[in-house]
Amino acid sequence: MAQTEDPVEIRIDRASPVPLTKQIRSRLERLIREGILAPGVKLPAGRELARDLGVNRATVSLAYEELVSEGLARAHVGQGTFVAAPEEKSQALPSNLPSGLDWSSLFSKGSQLADADGRRRAPSSQAVRSVPGLISFAGGMPDSGLFPTEAFRRALNRVIRAEGPELLQYSPVGGYPPLRQFLAGHLLRFGVEARPEEILIVNGSQQGLDLIARVLLDPGDSVAIEEPSYSRAIQVFRAFGAQLLPVPLGNEGLRLDALERVLGRHAPKLLYCQPTAHNPTGLTLSAEARRGLLALAARHRVPVVEDGFDGGLSFGDRQPAPLKAADASRLVIYIGTFSKILFPGLRLGWLVAPRPLLERLEMAKQLSDIHTSPLIQAAALHFCQRRLLGRHLSRCAAEYGRRRTILLRSLARRMPKGVTWTEAQGGFSSLVRLPERIDAEALLPGAVERGVAFTPGSVFFVNGGGESTFRLSFSSTPALRIDEGIRRLAEVIRQAMSRPSPRQDVERSTVPLV
Amino acid sequence: MAQTEDPVEIRIDRASPVPLTKQIRSRLERLIREGILAPGVKLPAGRELARDLGVNRATVSLAYEELVSEGLARAHVGQGTFVAAPEEKSQALPSNLPSGLDWSSLFSKGSQLADADGRRRAPSSQAVRSVPGLISFAGGMPDSGLFPTEAFRRALNRVIRAEGPELLQYSPVGGYPPLRQFLAGHLLRFGVEARPEEILIVNGSQQGLDLIARVLLDPGDSVAIEEPSYSRAIQVFRAFGAQLLPVPLGNEGLRLDALERVLGRHAPKLLYCQPTAHNPTGLTLSAEARRGLLALAARHRVPVVEDGFDGGLSFGDRQPAPLKAADASRLVIYIGTFSKILFPGLRLGWLVAPRPLLERLEMAKQLSDIHTSPLIQAAALHFCQRRLLGRHLSRCAAEYGRRRTILLRSLARRMPKGVTWTEAQGGFSSLVRLPERIDAEALLPGAVERGVAFTPGSVFFVNGGGESTFRLSFSSTPALRIDEGIRRLAEVIRQAMSRPSPRQDVERSTVPLV
Repeated sequence: MAQTEDPVEIRIDRASPVPLTKQIRSRLERLIREGILAPGVKLPAGRELARDLGVNRATVSLAYEELVSEGLARAHVGQGTFVAAPEEKSQALPSNLPSGLDWSSLFSKGSQLADADGRRRAPSSQAVRSVPGLISFAGGMPDSGLFPTEAFRRALNRVIRAEGPELLQYSPVGGYPPLRQFLAGHLLRFGVEARPEEILIVNGSQQGLDLIARVLLDPGDSVAIEEPSYSRAIQVFRAFGAQLLPVPLGNEGLRLDALERVLGRHAPKLLYCQPTAHNPTGLTLSAEARRGLLALAARHRVPVVEDGFDGGLSFGDRQPAPLKAADASRLVIYIGTFSKILFPGLRLGWLVAPRPLLERLEMAKQLSDIHTSPLIQAAALHFCQRRLLGRHLSRCAAEYGRRRTILLRSLARRMPKGVTWTEAQGGFSSLVRLPERIDAEALLPGAVERGVAFTPGSVFFVNGGGESTFRLSFSSTPALRIDEGIRRLAEVIRQAMSRPSPRQDVERSTVPLV
Repeated sequence: MAQTEDPVEIRIDRASPVPLTKQIRSRLERLIREGILAPGVKLPAGRELARDLGVNRATVSLAYEELVSEGLARAHVGQGTFVAAPEEKSQALPSNLPSGLDWSSLFSKGSQLADADGRRRAPSSQAVRSVPGLISFAGGMPDSGLFPTEAFRRALNRVIRAEGPELLQYSPVGGYPPLRQFLAGHLLRFGVEARPEEILIVNGSQQGLDLIARVLLDPGDSVAIEEPSYSRAIQVFRAFGAQLLPVPLGNEGLRLDALERVLGRHAPKLLYCQPTAHNPTGLTLSAEARRGLLALAARHRVPVVEDGFDGGLSFGDRQPAPLKAADASRLVIYIGTFSKILFPGLRLGWLVAPRPLLERLEMAKQLSDIHTSPLIQAAALHFCQRRLLGRHLSRCAAEYGRRRTILLRSLARRMPKGVTWTEAQGGFSSLVRLPERIDAEALLPGAVERGVAFTPGSVFFVNGGGESTFRLSFSSTPALRIDEGIRRLAEVIRQAMSRPSPRQDVERSTVPLV
């Protein structure tokens, strides 16, 4: 465990009737118990602390000995005194310190909206992680076992050696210029034509969504959105006070008839969609439906936010081009990210938009956090330029495709009748639908107990609904464990289906099939 | 120059009367002229492109030859054909492509506010950078010549080798736990007691400000703020629709009498201040004034946002402790950053706040960009744990202190009577005040022509004002060039002062002395 390099500041009060030893001991005890001084931190050398405080060395030694005897610290001869590891602490942390102001009366409307929506969508995955032997389909992230970590380390070294000081200094808000230029070429691969100045580098697609919401949404504006959809997109739009207009998905993705109705009736400010490898369903919209979508958007003059899961992670046939590639009316805002195709931990993505909008997005980016780390940008660029991204993607697409096939076969073999699911054409997940009377979230604790986890589907729905659905992410589950996971899950579901239904009396909104 | 790994997508239309060679050439020409294909990019091999398009190889070769003869590409025997460097292009880029929708009619109120304020504060520094021989005091950033780049590279390698896949995966929103724990210990050095769960890792102090504004400000709320102040703080609060209440600085920083008036009259939602090494003045508030400030804030129950320039970069005597260290009423929100004390390019900082508020800030952070890169967090932590930060800070404080002393001496020796300036006690800059009739921004072009640059002061003022002030940043100016820079500047000022004053008729708001 690491040591802090900083002296611990201890104030003593000579006028106080409390003995100095006790003052020193109490202060250190509090810092340790509150977790401010972490286990393994070295306490100041007794001699130095005594000198700094102007007290006798024995006074300090005595205080330290008392901490040791309480189990709060450990003395190592010749090395010093260290804060003890947690299991040696005799008491839990007191965590109800006074918090000063009544903060809850001060929160902004946006924060209140985000909180209300966030509570409804509280992820249940945290409780899940620590169960031993668990087969988790709850991830929704790339498999870190496939990460080209070593190659990326070399890319980082290369760029720091070549231009370290520049990459650690302030840098242009729009992004590291060679990365913008590279992306312009990269996007051509998908038929998207963007000049470098039409590309803004952001901290992953989430920041892209946030900046778009900031620049285009006022409270009360409405946003058309696929249902189900990416839950944090729902949350961001809500936090900016938007009304969400759900557009149901059919078996082939977004339903154009429903979209047309929504656009006609409500004139929303934006349409948000994931036409490729949709999260949570894994569906990909056909080329024909894409043309229809663009024609509707153009007719209704509504900007389209295309959350573009990289086509490189698609299974089977070649994917249709992104909406942005056929954006003759120039109303598509494209969001790209390295999180799915490389590493989420980079926090690196990009927006493509017509220049008048991009200027405003840049301004919002600057006020948000000045710019994205140029070091990370340069390293990702170098990695891509060495043609490592293509190689990595092929490998991942093959592996994820394999896991997806195993999952779909296993579902077909093991799931009881009445359970349906989407056949992912790309991405990380499929959405499963149970018979309506069964609540997926209520199943989760029992499933975890039996050693399998998933993400309850209601988080992907706009205004309630989806309670009988759940998402299965296959991207991070080892191929050899998928069938066993589905076996356990089928057992849990079968059992729930055989129980008399306790929720039949509950009014349930009918949810469009996905 | 790097090559893209991606094939260029070229569509041809066999039904068109336009010859195929011309179709290929036109498409590539447009991609090159618009900058989508960058200089140095390798065009697809002729043989492969011909095969992909199903055309004769000679058709492609001819198209390439025409590009070469136009100067848009270069053929290298045995290597292929490459996009030519900019100076070889015969025409400028056409940049007035249609932008589709009338985007300006769609921008949110926040974006319009940010734009209006941003235009007023447009940085003039960009025009400045490229002049050869320029001595610039316009930076406001640490000197990258002092960066411990190599040590940081080693820290990065170390953490990637130890836990690379975890650091490249998704990670907790609050921050990399060992970094939060380290900061809890680090802050004790300044007398600030914070448990790890009261610390939120953010992308630099700018994001800290943005999250605070998001969570606490509604349009129409008011924010008390020192005047002058950090310009991007002014901009962020404005973008959230806040009314700014300027509190003038005296010779020793924020004036308590003025603060008391503002708090009494307006009951603002927040007070934003930089009590240590204030930007742009470099002033540091005395311990006594800090006590007064806290007492006023507590009496008026107003949260204080303390933008805490690290005390490690102070000159001369030991700095008074941060407000947060004496925050008995628990109303101080502390913003810290690695940008000034280590590298701006990390985009790494932290917030300290009471837990009920921190929870909301965490939620806002999650919607903004999920979390800060754990790789960057772990590398910065490792760097600090190896006690390199302390060493780096001592070196920087000594060097910046030296530059500051040279600057102040040089100002005293060279500036004409009627010019005054603040004596920076920490940080990167001093603010200079000219006689009122002289407009600092109007002086800038002439100054740059004479080889010296500064930042006009009006950007640091809330509602106009400060036109006769400018900021001199000494942190990035080599010590040996400071006196020469000030000599040039004094010449420019002397000349302006000797001119009959053209702006005397203009109504000027009187600006409090800084």
